[in-house]
Amino acid sequence: MIGGGTGAFIGAVHRLAANLDGLYELVAGAFSSDAAKSAATGVLLGLAPDRVYGSFQDLIAREKQRPAAERVQVIAIVTPNYLHFEPARLALENGFHVILDKPMTFSLAEAKQLQTVAEASGCLLCLTHTYTGYPMVKEARQLLAANTLGPIRKAYVEYPQGWLSKFEEGGDNKQAAWRTDPARSGVAGAMGDIGTHAFNLLEYVTGLQVVKLCADINTVVAGRQLDDDGAVLLKLNNGASAVLMASQIAAGEENNVKIRVYGDKGGVEWQQADNNTLLVRWLDSPAEIRRTGTGYVGSFAQHNARVPAGHPEGYIEAFANLYRNFALTLQARANGTPATPEMLDFPSISDGVRGMAFIEHVIASGKSTEKWTEFTV
Amino acid sequence: MIGGGTGAFIGAVHRLAANLDGLYELVAGAFSSDAAKSAATGVLLGLAPDRVYGSFQDLIAREKQRPAAERVQVIAIVTPNYLHFEPARLALENGFHVILDKPMTFSLAEAKQLQTVAEASGCLLCLTHTYTGYPMVKEARQLLAANTLGPIRKAYVEYPQGWLSKFEEGGDNKQAAWRTDPARSGVAGAMGDIGTHAFNLLEYVTGLQVVKLCADINTVVAGRQLDDDGAVLLKLNNGASAVLMASQIAAGEENNVKIRVYGDKGGVEWQQADNNTLLVRWLDSPAEIRRTGTGYVGSFAQHNARVPAGHPEGYIEAFANLYRNFALTLQARANGTPATPEMLDFPSISDGVRGMAFIEHVIASGKSTEKWTEFTV
Amino acid sequence: MIGGGTGAFIGAVHRLAANLDGLYELVAGAFSSDAAKSAATGVLLGLAPDRVYGSFQDLIAREKQRPAAERVQVIAIVTPNYLHFEPARLALENGFHVILDKPMTFSLAEAKQLQTVAEASGCLLCLTHTYTGYPMVKEARQLLAANTLGPIRKAYVEYPQGWLSKFEEGGDNKQAAWRTDPARSGVAGAMGDIGTHAFNLLEYVTGLQVVKLCADINTVVAGRQLDDDGAVLLKLNNGASAVLMASQIAAGEENNVKIRVYGDKGGVEWQQADNNTLLVRWLDSPAEIRRTGTGYVGSFAQHNARVPAGHPEGYIEAFANLYRNFALTLQARANGTPATPEMLDFPSISDGVRGMAFIEHVIASGKSTEKWTEFTV
Amino acid sequence: MIGGGTGAFIGAVHRLAANLDGLYELVAGAFSSDAAKSAATGVLLGLAPDRVYGSFQDLIAREKQRPAAERVQVIAIVTPNYLHFEPARLALENGFHVILDKPMTFSLAEAKQLQTVAEASGCLLCLTHTYTGYPMVKEARQLLAANTLGPIRKAYVEYPQGWLSKFEEGGDNKQAAWRTDPARSGVAGAMGDIGTHAFNLLEYVTGLQVVKLCADINTVVAGRQLDDDGAVLLKLNNGASAVLMASQIAAGEENNVKIRVYGDKGGVEWQQADNNTLLVRWLDSPAEIRRTGTGYVGSFAQHNARVPAGHPEGYIEAFANLYRNFALTLQARANGTPATPEMLDFPSISDGVRGMAFIEHVIASGKSTEKWTEFTV
Repeated sequence: MIGGGTGAFIGAVHRLAANLDGLYELVAGAFSSDAAKSAATGVLLGLAPDRVYGSFQDLIAREKQRPAAERVQVIAIVTPNYLHFEPARLALENGFHVILDKPMTFSLAEAKQLQTVAEASGCLLCLTHTYTGYPMVKEARQLLAANTLGPIRKAYVEYPQGWLSKFEEGGDNKQAAWRTDPARSGVAGAMGDIGTHAFNLLEYVTGLQVVKLCADINTVVAGRQLDDDGAVLLKLNNGASAVLMASQIAAGEENNVKIRVYGDKGGVEWQQADNNTLLVRWLDSPAEIRRTGTGYVGSFAQHNARVPAGHPEGYIEAFANLYRNFALTLQARANGTPATPEMLDFPSISDGVRGMAFIEHVIASGKSTEKWTEFTV
Repeated sequence: MIGGGTGAFIGAVHRLAANLDGLYELVAGAFSSDAAKSAATGVLLGLAPDRVYGSFQDLIAREKQRPAAERVQVIAIVTPNYLHFEPARLALENGFHVILDKPMTFSLAEAKQLQTVAEASGCLLCLTHTYTGYPMVKEARQLLAANTLGPIRKAYVEYPQGWLSKFEEGGDNKQAAWRTDPARSGVAGAMGDIGTHAFNLLEYVTGLQVVKLCADINTVVAGRQLDDDGAVLLKLNNGASAVLMASQIAAGEENNVKIRVYGDKGGVEWQQADNNTLLVRWLDSPAEIRRTGTGYVGSFAQHNARVPAGHPEGYIEAFANLYRNFALTLQARANGTPATPEMLDFPSISDGVRGMAFIEHVIASGKSTEKWTEFTV
Repeated sequence: MIGGGTGAFIGAVHRLAANLDGLYELVAGAFSSDAAKSAATGVLLGLAPDRVYGSFQDLIAREKQRPAAERVQVIAIVTPNYLHFEPARLALENGFHVILDKPMTFSLAEAKQLQTVAEASGCLLCLTHTYTGYPMVKEARQLLAANTLGPIRKAYVEYPQGWLSKFEEGGDNKQAAWRTDPARSGVAGAMGDIGTHAFNLLEYVTGLQVVKLCADINTVVAGRQLDDDGAVLLKLNNGASAVLMASQIAAGEENNVKIRVYGDKGGVEWQQADNNTLLVRWLDSPAEIRRTGTGYVGSFAQHNARVPAGHPEGYIEAFANLYRNFALTLQARANGTPATPEMLDFPSISDGVRGMAFIEHVIASGKSTEKWTEFTV
Repeated sequence: MIGGGTGAFIGAVHRLAANLDGLYELVAGAFSSDAAKSAATGVLLGLAPDRVYGSFQDLIAREKQRPAAERVQVIAIVTPNYLHFEPARLALENGFHVILDKPMTFSLAEAKQLQTVAEASGCLLCLTHTYTGYPMVKEARQLLAANTLGPIRKAYVEYPQGWLSKFEEGGDNKQAAWRTDPARSGVAGAMGDIGTHAFNLLEYVTGLQVVKLCADINTVVAGRQLDDDGAVLLKLNNGASAVLMASQIAAGEENNVKIRVYGDKGGVEWQQADNNTLLVRWLDSPAEIRRTGTGYVGSFAQHNARVPAGHPEGYIEAFANLYRNFALTLQARANGTPATPEMLDFPSISDGVRGMAFIEHVIASGKSTEKWTEFTV
């Protein structure tokens, strides 16, 4: 693991997700660029001291020197955005598979470059867009892909948070500090941190691609350097329209990502606060409550659940599904057996490139006086 | 009553709303321009045959000939949009108060003209924007007006319906037929029918006014002449931003109007499907469930509820609140006593003018390549 | 109307319910045994002073003296329990139909006597067990009656309130005072006031009858004279078992009556707080959300709704359904046409007798050391 | 681990729970009494073959022969009820701490005997009553313990399932087969499997003890040997009353354990289907929605959450909280530091004894013609 020292949020989540199914063992880390801090985290995690490094370069170089059977196989990179590209590039170039936190890089240019590196390396990359790991999100995608609800006509995706309602970066909130800092986060704040999740969820569930967009991007809190709120009108490549809302100043909101998609026969609705439910509405018959862990859900929802219906799974399990599918894909590859579509269903480097394109287009549109900005990669 | 013959939806609702509190008695009507149909409706409603008319002109002329104490006092106009202006103008000019269905007129020009007529007439007009009649919508407005949640920063208002997902106007659906016909409905379809409700709700709850907007307006169903879907980015006069979504092709949705508004201390959420609840979220403490009929709600919510907490009120009661407050205002006026702010709290002709301005601006913006359209009246 | 003077709760509800559909006109009343109070209420309600009486005896005697076409046809009795029997008896014996608040009488003996009177009189009686007036309660009954969910095996019905958590009868709470007074309420407090509603709902929805029961009856608040809490195990006449819970000391609860019934293929769930929804669960397929006002519901739910899906109806509408069906039945009778099963679907005098039997049995069981008490009428 | 071979449900859950926080490593197992099956499970789990045993006796004997630092420290026993006592006794007597699935033993006599063994052994036992592992269940307990809601007056606990609605034990459903078999499950079916969970939850949340009970116990499905449904009236040691409902024939229900407890100032409500929420109702002010992961919850809820508010945790996390607290307690013990109350908060052997007493009393009461059965241990 690179990053994820004490006090980090997402590093701890990656470790829980990796632990859950017993498919990963954490054996080495460069948890901080401060060697003492990295070592201290290593002690807390019970790692062998000689495999706790003071830099990602050291980690990659020294792990590579170990015999193939004794070195790390996958490197999870959980640093802030500006520290994604270099360690990911180096890891891939040295033959390590990579699990990378989102958004993929600091800029679209970096993302494209990383894609080239990855393709040349023969290694795989998994981008942790958590929300696509939920069984009922996968069920929505599978229902829509099967045309069960007819051609898609409209989608709404929203991601309301309230935790940046005050000038948190003025205090000692590390999470707020880097996320609102252009030097560490990139051109976008809320749109990069959570807007990309919403964008990825939209394209994942609909199976469609955004082709143009029109954004209202706001920095609401005085003194803040990046956007903390925005709303986007979008057009999809089948002609459907969509709305994407993401805010970090929706005071009192927690993290209730929600998506609704309508075809001409009905619609689906999923929200994280009730993540084990997919609501399926129909034009002229009762709405259905589809549930995780039941026998009637599709192959993707089945594959990504661990316990029977009525035993709620949540965020860590969704995150762990990304880790698990990535591991199963790597195992299949190692065994020379084919990975099933269910195994291969994790966010990839091309999702990452589209996410970075979203960030750059949405910020550009926010500044434009023209209504529509074409979405190109 | 003008309009509201057999088979009409909203006419029947007006009658239920008028009945509920025993403050109105229906004594005369021109229910259809077809005199026989009008008479038949009169029979069903048990009216005296001599007060059932074949045209609104007749109704107004002949009621005026009756002694003041024996003529109708208020005329409810429940016809399609293109038949709002003339009867309303004639009624006001002849000294009758008017209850008028929304949107107020066929065009903004008509709306302004009606406003002039009304002001000259000394009569009052109540526009039936139902949703502002709900007790917990009023509670939201009162909480925000008192700055309980801090300055408003963001609002979302949505009105999803699915009933026009097919080409209903191709069959014998009278409701669909006139609402999708530019000659009867005006320049807008969904935006006029339900978008104006959402717009009115937004301005009512926030106490703010829209100053510019950017709209994505769609006609999704093949063959349809007017919009059936749209989403709008808006700026409010305190600098806050908002999003308005209205659709009649969200297949499977019923009528779940919903509004969320956030200040810097917390936010409010109300939706029609759970209309007796106002959810109030706070930055750092538990969200509150405020409920109709309790002792702790504000004066507006108190005034507009009829039964104790836990006895659900709904759409008809909200509609009846408009009728009731209008009646109480007229009674106060007749008695020479002051009407309280709670009585005066019904949608007025100026709401109607702004609603018509919304319709024209939002359609213009939908056709524009420029991002922002200024909102002027 | 007999009873329902200023300050009464249920009298006002009866008037709203009677008004709603325009099928009743309130023309006479004995609103209080204090003639001045009665007169004052009459003024507020705009009645002719000569039809506002100082006693129910007067009302009945003097209305009967009026020509048949000019006298009241139906008398609503909305007094406390101890004042149900006499006015109801007198009204029936004098040829007036009766709408009577629940529980029907002060004792089971009175109830049986009233049944005899009613049968002899040829007049009809409607008992206002409100909850059976909800469209989705009727939908549940119709689904179960059609064996859609298989033979009934288990039912839970609950009625939690919190408004008597303190010694309210010690102050000036009139509602609390008579409901906790054995001289005015009868042998039961909570079990009479709300337990009978729950019991009636159970028998109505299941279409079954209770054959024995075992009750835990409690008086929780110090100083109170009657029960304010209880739970009952029940056996139904098809062998199924049930649980009934009613409490008025469930602090913070409003009035969320709820019933769940399970057959061998699935179950239904309805609760007043979400009264326009009937949840239908199935053994091996997604649960369904059935909704008021849709096209797919059964004939009873259709008949008892006024507005399309998504326009919430509530408590007053449910109450009004009792009034409306009673009126339609009386009209059919007057016209010599058959009343449909939907019209005849209002709580009758035999429901009232069973309700009184429930009260007496449940209180007896609460005092018994034997487990099961046979339920007989 | 003892038990938990391929196809078992709860064994897999124990492994997920043990994995999550990285505090346990599975190194040895006797997964089946069939040595080949045990070995096969060991292979799947990647264990060293020499630590996969064919019997629990072997596991305990041979692990004990290993050097102290290389042997298992904790043995998880996840077999059917009739196979709890012997392995638990042997493990404790040989110095291994034990994690044991519920109900604790086959009979109350065994439970008491095990308690004696455990006390003599100096080892600790954790009983996996999962539901007390949820953060918001702990929040409810902490609020009530602090008297925030006043003295407890009433509680409802319910555990509805539908999975045994048919004669599942007639087919190849292993879970159904042993749970409905008196030889493997004990005197109770549903009451042992899920009734004990409800009972434990009731005593845990209220901090009170049951002193007498009255049960209606049913075997609904033809051919079944044990109860599959029941409801119980209970009295608690402070005089409060409660109702406990548990059913496995509530067709269509998943696993929505729910508890409501009322004091004289308000009440709490928690249900597994919305496990990150604790609803707190108050007599005269708005209900509160308390949420996992927030800053305002008490020390127990804080200690048992892993991610910030809005990132739903669920069943596996609750289960893992038992494992985690047990590990933290053992670590504190090993380090000679005091375990905090939060660490010590896991179900213990005395909970297990009370659970077995519940099973025997509730079944006895079900057969009794007397109303109340005293609850003694």
